Amino acid sequence: MIDADLQLRPVGVVASSLTAVGDAPNQGDEGAPDADLVFDPTLAVALGGMAVDDEIVVLTWLHQSDRDVLVVHPRDDDHRPLTGVFSTRSPHRPNPIGLHEVVVIGIESTSNEVRVRVRGLEAIDGTPILDVKPVLAPITFR
Amino acid sequence: MIDADLQLRPVGVVASSLTAVGDAPNQGDEGAPDADLVFDPTLAVALGGMAVDDEIVVLTWLHQSDRDVLVVHPRDDDHRPLTGVFSTRSPHRPNPIGLHEVVVIGIESTSNEVRVRVRGLEAIDGTPILDVKPVLAPITFR
Repeated sequence: MIDADLQLRPVGVVASSLTAVGDAPNQGDEGAPDADLVFDPTLAVALGGMAVDDEIVVLTWLHQSDRDVLVVHPRDDDHRPLTGVFSTRSPHRPNPIGLHEVVVIGIESTSNEVRVRVRGLEAIDGTPILDVKPVLAPITFR
Repeated sequence: MIDADLQLRPVGVVASSLTAVGDAPNQGDEGAPDADLVFDPTLAVALGGMAVDDEIVVLTWLHQSDRDVLVVHPRDDDHRPLTGVFSTRSPHRPNPIGLHEVVVIGIESTSNEVRVRVRGLEAIDGTPILDVKPVLAPITFR
């Protein structure tokens, strides 16, 4: 629909004890382990202002997803009716961008990398990180 | 850091009375007009299950952003100290993906397009849409 250079540049990678998609919980509050967001040291400045206890949204590229899927059974439950992926949080969708609300529990900088340790990340080891933002406030204008 | 094909495929486009970045409020709850999310009819199935009054997160590609910016004065206020973009919602960042929490106020399908009318979208006319998801629940596990 639009012709533009929409090429993502990964800014980091997830380091986690979760190594298989099948082991990852569906949501971060369903038993995800603590994990590290690992950034190149050239991006340390972009992390300036981040502190322990911050609630952040991590945007990832769910690299094992099927981008041609448009409908799914929510939560892989065949008893739930097929639903458009835009009404679900399925990893399978045209642009498999994951949103993960997590809490910062540690920040460690070395000359080789910056590691931001977080609680509640359901992404698997090796998942590319696209962006980090403060959490969104709940909708108040309706 | 990661070598992969991270090419986005726009799934739709914003139709809004906001046409210049300077006119857009910083956040959707600061006076953004109602706007339309316009999708190709081939994606109608991916919107199945969406209904009026749903709270959704729209992911956009902020196509007028500067991807080389790593620090900003929050809210363009020079009195605020320079802050890493990952601690702000600045549109200028390595991957300028916008997150917009909006409320669905209408859905209209024709053979040419699907229009989802939303309240509270601060993106300008012509902004590519990458994804739509249900809103995130607040963090409860900390």
